[in-house]
Amino acid sequence: MNRNSKVDFDKLPYKLMLSENELPSQWYNLRADMKNKPASLLNPGTLKPVTFEELSHVFCDECVRQELDDTTPFFDIPKEILDFYRMYRPSPLTHAVFLEKALGTPAHIFYKFEGNNPSGSHKLNSAIAQAYYAKKQGLTGVTTETGAGQWGTALSMACAFFGLVCKVFMVKCSYEQKPFRREVMRTYGASVVPSPSDTTDAGRKILADFPDSPGSLGCAISEAVECAVKTPGYRYVLGSVLSQVLLHQSIIGLETAAACEKFGIDPDIIIGCAGGGSNLGGLIAPFMGRKLRGEKDYRIIAVEPASCPSFTRGRYAYDFCDTGMICPLAKMYTLGCRFIPSPSHAGGLRYHGMSSVLSQLYDDKLMEARSVEQTAVFAAAEQFARTEGILPAPESSHAIRVAIDEALKCKETGEEKTIILGLTGTGYFDMYAYQKFNDGVMNDYIPTDADLEKGFAQLPPMK
Amino acid sequence: MNRNSKVDFDKLPYKLMLSENELPSQWYNLRADMKNKPASLLNPGTLKPVTFEELSHVFCDECVRQELDDTTPFFDIPKEILDFYRMYRPSPLTHAVFLEKALGTPAHIFYKFEGNNPSGSHKLNSAIAQAYYAKKQGLTGVTTETGAGQWGTALSMACAFFGLVCKVFMVKCSYEQKPFRREVMRTYGASVVPSPSDTTDAGRKILADFPDSPGSLGCAISEAVECAVKTPGYRYVLGSVLSQVLLHQSIIGLETAAACEKFGIDPDIIIGCAGGGSNLGGLIAPFMGRKLRGEKDYRIIAVEPASCPSFTRGRYAYDFCDTGMICPLAKMYTLGCRFIPSPSHAGGLRYHGMSSVLSQLYDDKLMEARSVEQTAVFAAAEQFARTEGILPAPESSHAIRVAIDEALKCKETGEEKTIILGLTGTGYFDMYAYQKFNDGVMNDYIPTDADLEKGFAQLPPMK
Repeated sequence: MNRNSKVDFDKLPYKLMLSENELPSQWYNLRADMKNKPASLLNPGTLKPVTFEELSHVFCDECVRQELDDTTPFFDIPKEILDFYRMYRPSPLTHAVFLEKALGTPAHIFYKFEGNNPSGSHKLNSAIAQAYYAKKQGLTGVTTETGAGQWGTALSMACAFFGLVCKVFMVKCSYEQKPFRREVMRTYGASVVPSPSDTTDAGRKILADFPDSPGSLGCAISEAVECAVKTPGYRYVLGSVLSQVLLHQSIIGLETAAACEKFGIDPDIIIGCAGGGSNLGGLIAPFMGRKLRGEKDYRIIAVEPASCPSFTRGRYAYDFCDTGMICPLAKMYTLGCRFIPSPSHAGGLRYHGMSSVLSQLYDDKLMEARSVEQTAVFAAAEQFARTEGILPAPESSHAIRVAIDEALKCKETGEEKTIILGLTGTGYFDMYAYQKFNDGVMNDYIPTDADLEKGFAQLPPMK
Repeated sequence: MNRNSKVDFDKLPYKLMLSENELPSQWYNLRADMKNKPASLLNPGTLKPVTFEELSHVFCDECVRQELDDTTPFFDIPKEILDFYRMYRPSPLTHAVFLEKALGTPAHIFYKFEGNNPSGSHKLNSAIAQAYYAKKQGLTGVTTETGAGQWGTALSMACAFFGLVCKVFMVKCSYEQKPFRREVMRTYGASVVPSPSDTTDAGRKILADFPDSPGSLGCAISEAVECAVKTPGYRYVLGSVLSQVLLHQSIIGLETAAACEKFGIDPDIIIGCAGGGSNLGGLIAPFMGRKLRGEKDYRIIAVEPASCPSFTRGRYAYDFCDTGMICPLAKMYTLGCRFIPSPSHAGGLRYHGMSSVLSQLYDDKLMEARSVEQTAVFAAAEQFARTEGILPAPESSHAIRVAIDEALKCKETGEEKTIILGLTGTGYFDMYAYQKFNDGVMNDYIPTDADLEKGFAQLPPMK
């Protein structure tokens, strides 16, 4: 039963490091190995699959090519991006020996830590790629949305690097909870607008309907897209959900798989948090690939907040990617594009939908999903901080919660399972949430069935 | 003139990394190579050199031994500390290629980055050592002060790791400017008190004299020491100034020297920020050692804020290490222990005095010092962030400022000098200051000669 009976875990280094020349030189496109391909994006006007031409008004050309390609298994990473990756990659796969000891579990826990780069999260992996392609195409600026602020920070940094203008629509409740995030982005030269804002039609419409809206990723996306298509020389970039983003983020999983191979480790369970799916899709890519090709089996667990349970309580249906309904439709697990999640502190997971790739895999029962409440998440975060030293982002802590739960199950059963979790980033800009937890005044938000029905009622009337 | 004419800088990796097994296994005690030893600490009552017995009421025994030993050149790093170091060390020595390009300088700039660990600064190197020795001695808790919060964060983390109670007196203006720092420390289980507080005699006395005092490191030290000596099973730990701290921090310089050797680089100039001297003393240790032994010459530059210019405008004299005058006296460059610096944002550099070791070296003209104003420092920080990606702590940015200035001088003269700077930490908890800079409302504070005279007037009447 123990896949790793030959590994002497006590003799492993803490950090299972790859050297700079072991950095993968290609991204892996998981869709190429999927028999049931993710459904195409649809043009919201014609309800036909979107064309290159249509998407290229929104995204830069190379990103559209990547978005629409579900057959090419590998894409070379351009030299300029590889050079940038070398500044902070390969990232460590760390053995959580101190957490294991504190839990008294026979399980072996490893975390792929993506917070050890200047932007503090995995988002940089795709930000630098998208900024590079925009620059290469001769564009002058990009727009985007940000929830927790991690994506906005990463993109601001990437744009500063390539000399692109960067305009960020930041979900209003995050903007208010995290004023310092805004300042980080400004320091990198970005301009930051709280969303919904009165600077776009989409924002004004939402404000008219819900003047006190705390905002949502779906709403901020509408604003950013509108701003991009109306500004000459601009395109929109997105930090999650899209297949191109999962492609770029596959670097996380490829490194993880390479480190496992280098040190002779074979994981049983792979756990990642899931908002739009950027981290999870990247982390699991090569492992899911093996599973799809029938080479190996793994348990793969997506963890989402109970306050925004797309996988565990959503519908698998075509829906708009944005609240303003101006973006293409995607088939995905969704709570409805008008669903405004309660202001949970894991801003990066407050998205109504989910990557089409992951949605299809989940629907095909190739992965599991679990929802967790935020007080339980912060308890896990605190335990992790005190044992492993790293103060994790609330988003990442969702994965920690479930990894701890699985390790405690192993303690009961005596099973010596090997668990890998994706630690997407650090929580240094989430201290307002930590403060609430430290003060014992944090609440859990769980939408009622009636709340969800309202969202489902607005799903587009189609199959 | 060019020491590195044989090095192909274009072919170096960005990060000059050491492997885990190249981690130094001993600390280096610079004092052993000093002909003019730093003056002894004096008992404030008897004005005689402090004894082991006297100091051991304040510090744990092993730390006192290290403090008083100015002849042993190397100390073995205990296995438990080495194991902890391996979680985040060796730290990278990074080639600042993008900054060089932006400056258009022929100079080569490298930064030893100590912010790439969970606590975000170099302070962890000594925190874990002091916590380990306290635990080994069977103590139950430690007290300390913190300015910027970096030391407090590091110590909280170290105490969580070894299961020690941790009580932190935080300089009040930092406590107010950085509420989230407090929450980080609390998350690691520490209790945090703004200083001056009414919980100690020292604090009450200062509050009586200056009710609106923004606090200072000197004042927080008094409170922490008082609390430690009055609580059974507690000792006091300090994050800078002391020779034991410089000893622990020598790991920074030893790694830097090892990386230089490994990659064939020979620096001309070594630059570090200086508050109490922990980073600078650690960074320069092996280089200064060579200089003292006559093996090699280097330019070594200490950078301090114009608002708290101990080296550049202070007196070399015996003075109290703390404002409450309960600590031993040290001979050092000082502004007087009652000097309360204006609330500059580089909280970690707001200390009236300076390491005795560095003071003696400076007095012997073995190193230079320069003071810089904070708006110029933040301009350098911004440029560094936008080119190198890392958002630096204001303290570290003092060193960046002077490194840029030196690199620009090279641009004028055409000299191809090699510069190493100590990048002590990240600025993610300094966004209040960055915000002021971004908004263009940051001021510079420079004490007048009259301000300084007030401080000097209170120096103890002795040689």
